This record gives sequence, structure tokens and C-alpha cells, in this order.
Amino acid sequence: MESIIAKQPFQLSEGNLFEKVTRPEQEVKAHEIGIQVEASGVNPIDAKTRQTPVTGEVRVLGYEGAGVVDKVGSNVTRFKKGDKVMFVGAPKWEGSNQTYQVLGEHYVTHLPEHLSFEEGATLPLTAFTAYETLFDIFGISRDASQNLGRTILIINGAGGVGSIATQIAKAYGLNVITTASRQETIAWSQKMGADTVLNHREDLEAQFEAHNLPQPDYIFCTYDTDRYYEPMIRLVKPRGHIATIVVFKENQDLNALKQKAITFTHESMFTRLTYEFETEYYQKYLDDLAEKLNAGVYQSTLTEVLHGLTPENVYKGHQMMEEQSHIGKLAIKF
Amino acid sequence: MESIIAKQPFQLSEGNLFEKVTRPEQEVKAHEIGIQVEASGVNPIDAKTRQTPVTGEVRVLGYEGAGVVDKVGSNVTRFKKGDKVMFVGAPKWEGSNQTYQVLGEHYVTHLPEHLSFEEGATLPLTAFTAYETLFDIFGISRDASQNLGRTILIINGAGGVGSIATQIAKAYGLNVITTASRQETIAWSQKMGADTVLNHREDLEAQFEAHNLPQPDYIFCTYDTDRYYEPMIRLVKPRGHIATIVVFKENQDLNALKQKAITFTHESMFTRLTYEFETEYYQKYLDDLAEKLNAGVYQSTLTEVLHGLTPENVYKGHQMMEEQSHIGKLAIKF
Repeated sequence: MESIIAKQPFQLSEGNLFEKVTRPEQEVKAHEIGIQVEASGVNPIDAKTRQTPVTGEVRVLGYEGAGVVDKVGSNVTRFKKGDKVMFVGAPKWEGSNQTYQVLGEHYVTHLPEHLSFEEGATLPLTAFTAYETLFDIFGISRDASQNLGRTILIINGAGGVGSIATQIAKAYGLNVITTASRQETIAWSQKMGADTVLNHREDLEAQFEAHNLPQPDYIFCTYDTDRYYEPMIRLVKPRGHIATIVVFKENQDLNALKQKAITFTHESMFTRLTYEFETEYYQKYLDDLAEKLNAGVYQSTLTEVLHGLTPENVYKGHQMMEEQSHIGKLAIKF
Repeated sequence: MESIIAKQPFQLSEGNLFEKVTRPEQEVKAHEIGIQVEASGVNPIDAKTRQTPVTGEVRVLGYEGAGVVDKVGSNVTRFKKGDKVMFVGAPKWEGSNQTYQVLGEHYVTHLPEHLSFEEGATLPLTAFTAYETLFDIFGISRDASQNLGRTILIINGAGGVGSIATQIAKAYGLNVITTASRQETIAWSQKMGADTVLNHREDLEAQFEAHNLPQPDYIFCTYDTDRYYEPMIRLVKPRGHIATIVVFKENQDLNALKQKAITFTHESMFTRLTYEFETEYYQKYLDDLAEKLNAGVYQSTLTEVLHGLTPENVYKGHQMMEEQSHIGKLAIKF
């Protein structure tokens, strides 16, 4: 198989240290699937992981993808050779920036019929993050009617996670307020289903007041948590819940949470996988994602495709992630 | 009525600025009850509030008590004149360090038959805090059988909140690990029902390992949150939940929560009351407290009584709270 590897952590300013190499395929164990990868999703976590120490000889980045099942282990029941699938990866495994990926069947679901590989490759990681945040952290109901009347604010509605989180939150009955800053991002977030899109270059509290918006029960921060920490605390309902997926640059005052008895979660979609518990949640949420895509409830969040599994395209994808201005999702089509 | 007041914030080192004065009783509105107070509970929050600016002419501290119903408003249905009751107060109202207290019926429950006024006066605030933390923050089930196999760690099991939190957690099926430091506090925490009492002068993680204890699903910190912030993060289960009621002295690194996707809540029992929503929870939890006390499931947490509603006793109570070494609860019996 062909893999895009790096042998050491590096900054993009050092040049392109990604290389394309040919390596033997990994073996497929009893509960695993071997997938011929056709497309890989690019995410901010790739760029962050690139800068951390490499364990093992080389590192293959990429934490989601889509392709065709090539081999199934003896215990695998849900897939057979030739099935089109999409999947999530994890930093503890080899990544999806290679033509063959082996992983447990919990991390895989069938590719919805009308989706291309690149559309499928760019949904699993962001969707799983959004599902965990909505259902396991905020505790919203699987019964949409139970969620009516509740409001979520999604900071950066046009980003990869924001785009699918908006759709899932809408599908499950929430009133969705998002933030965006440019004409294109505002239009995109509306397309994703946001009920209200605020301008995050302007004062959020003033906009809540001007539009007479309800205090959010939940706030999901997908951009610059330091900047939004205090505004989120002022905006959220008493006893409300804030979650972020973005690391802080500075220490924060946790006492600010006390007057409203606010709950704060630092979400990581890799926790269940890293600590190897409740891994059935990956399957549960990916299956729901596929079902809703098949039913036309959710739409693709893909906006751009780099053609060819090359060191140049992986490098370019990382550049785009570090610019933090990308709308929706980016794929590499092999 | 007689009230212990302060006209300004002060430190105990400035001397005793509490005064006893005679003032007219407050009026009882339609949904309110007038209570002849017989005993008041003393809590760390009294000492903290004493040091904050006084709004209004004078301040009466004390946020829980017990006594006899004297008057009931026209909309009150659950109480009649002569009923023995216990209640929680709040910093936004006049406190319980006076012989007459007026408050809404949500904040009052019947005094269990076998409890003295001073025993009843010292349970509502701590119990309500513990109920909110267990049920609304950690989300444990009202059905104890559903909580079996789950573990809570309570930092400072012998304190006021720790003493009743231990009992409630046990009654609702949790495995309860507490910390204490002295012979007396260890014995007390065991008396409150802790399954395991660890020594918080020694390394907690080493003790978890030595005793082969399960990772806690929930950690409830009731003492020195700065000191326990990092150990709690290391101890709690992945995707576990930490709550504190103790303000931090320093800013903290919220990124430390990310690897395990930990949820953190800064609990305040006054939030519902301050923002005036879900105030029926006060009644719900106080009624459950009274029911369990009547049934002998919970026991009193009272350990010491100061006799007489005097400036000296209120001052002494504050001294004892600031020493932070008190076991269980302290009452002032009028």
C-alpha cells in the first residue's frame, strides 16, 4: 500500500516533510476489517497531531475516510468484501492517509448510497464529535419532541464540526443559533439549517438582546475557546452546559462558572477509543449518521477536494486547517 | 423580633461587629410562611458572605434553620400554624440568625418527628447541595438499583456537605469513597456510611491502587479545590464528572480535562433561587430529606450546639467555620 508518512514532528514553516512510501498492508484480525481507502478527510486535529512526538518509526495522519471493504476478520458480521464504507480513525492507530486501513468494525458504517467517497470520508469524525457532545454531554433526548423549546448556540457554525452539529441539533428538535463572520460563512451556516446566524465579529450578547433570542441551554464552542469563555458564561442559562473541542491557550477562572452553577466539558472524541470502553458508541452514532444521510435528513458538509494522495496535497490540507478559515470540510480523493 | 445583624463587611480580626437588635417582623405574602425560628445552622457560606458588601441597611446572615410556623399566606397549602418545620434560606433574603423568618413554601419542609430543632436546622442547606450535585449534576437515578456498581469519591467526607452527601449517595446505591485526615474524622465519615475512607494527608492515587479501588464515576470536592484539581482529574473515570462547591484561589488549566473528556461543574445551591427557576426542586429535595430522616435512612449530622442567639455565638460560629476543621454540623439554638 501507499502511505503518506512523516518521521518526525514539524512546523509547516520548515517545509514539506511528508513523504510517500510503499509499505506492506497491516494484517486483519478476527474483529477487524481491511479497507481499500478511496478518500480521506482532513481535520484540524491532523495539524495538531503533526506537531507532537512521533511514536513508532513513522506516522500516518488522517482520522477518517471512505473506501471499499477488502477483507473481513472471522468475527465480523456487519460487513462483507465489496461493501462501500466510511469510518473514523484515531491517533493511536495508523491513519487514513494511505490506500489501505485496518480497523475494528465499531468504527465503520455503510456509505450512504448517494454519497461519493469524498463526501463520506469527511463526515464520520465531525459527526461523531457532534453526536457525543449533543447526546452524551448535553444529554439531549433521542426523541426530538422532548428537545423542542431548547436552544443551542454553536460557536463557528460554518466549520467542519459546526456544520454537521447544526444539522444533527436541528434534526433532533433543538433551536439552533450559530455564529459566523463572512457573507459566505453566514450563507453556509444557514444552508446547514441554523435558525439564526449571529456575526461573531460583533458583540454576541448585544445580538442576543437585539434579536430577542432565548438564553441557550447549551453552548458548543468549536473555535477560539479563550475568546469565548467569558461571553459563553454570560450567555448560557443558569445551570446550563458549555462544551468545547478547542484547547485553551491560557488558564481560566473556574469560579466564573459558580454563580450560574455552569457545567463545562472539554470534549474529546478519542476518549472512548483511547481508554477502550463504550466503543459501541462509535457504531451507534455512525449508523445513525448513515441512516439520516440515506433519508436525506442530513446533507454532505464537503466543500473542497484535493485530488491525489500526495505529500503535496496532505501538506496543502494542513495549511488550510492552520488558516482556520475553511468552510465545511476538505477531502483528499486518492 | 430579635436579629443578629452586621452593618458592614468585616474580618474576624477586626473584632466582633455583630449586633443584636429588635426589629419589626417582615410581612407574610400570599405564598409565604412566617416561622418562629428556634435554631439556625452555621455554614462556611456565612463566613464568606460576611466579607462581601452589605446591600440594604443591615445584613442578617444564616441560610438554614428550624422552628414553628406562625403565619401562613393565603396561597399556602402544605403548612399550618403550629407545624414544626426546617428550611433553607439564601443570601438574597434576610437570614435565619433572627427569631422570625419569612419565606416561600418551596424552601420549607416538615421537621421529622424524632429530630430536635437544632438537628433539623443543620440539614437543609447541605442536603440540598448534595441532592443537586448527585441528581442534577451527576445525573444519578432515583432508582437505587440503577446506581449499583457506580462509585463516588467525596473529598472531605466529614465536613457538613460531605456528611450528608455520603448518606444520600449510600441510600441511592452508590459505592462511596471519602477522604478524611484525623482519627475522629475518619471514624465520623465511617459512621456517615462511607464504604472506604482514605487519608487525605497521603497520596490519594497510591491509596486507590493499594486498596484496589475502582475509578470513581463522580468526584465531589468539598474542600480546597485547587489542591485536588489535578489529582481528581487523574483519578476520575474517562468521561467522568467532577463537581466542586469550593471556590478556587487560582486560575486552572482546563485543557487538563480534555484527554479524558471530563465534565466539571461549579455547583451553587443558590442558582435556582437567585435566577428564580425550577424552585420546586427545593421542595422536592427537602421533602425527600425529611422522608428519609423519618424512615431512619439518614441520621443527623449535628455535632455541636452554641446556646443562645447572641452576637458572641454568631461570631464564634464564624470562627469555627474559618478554622475549617469542624466535623459535621454546628447549630445555634435560640
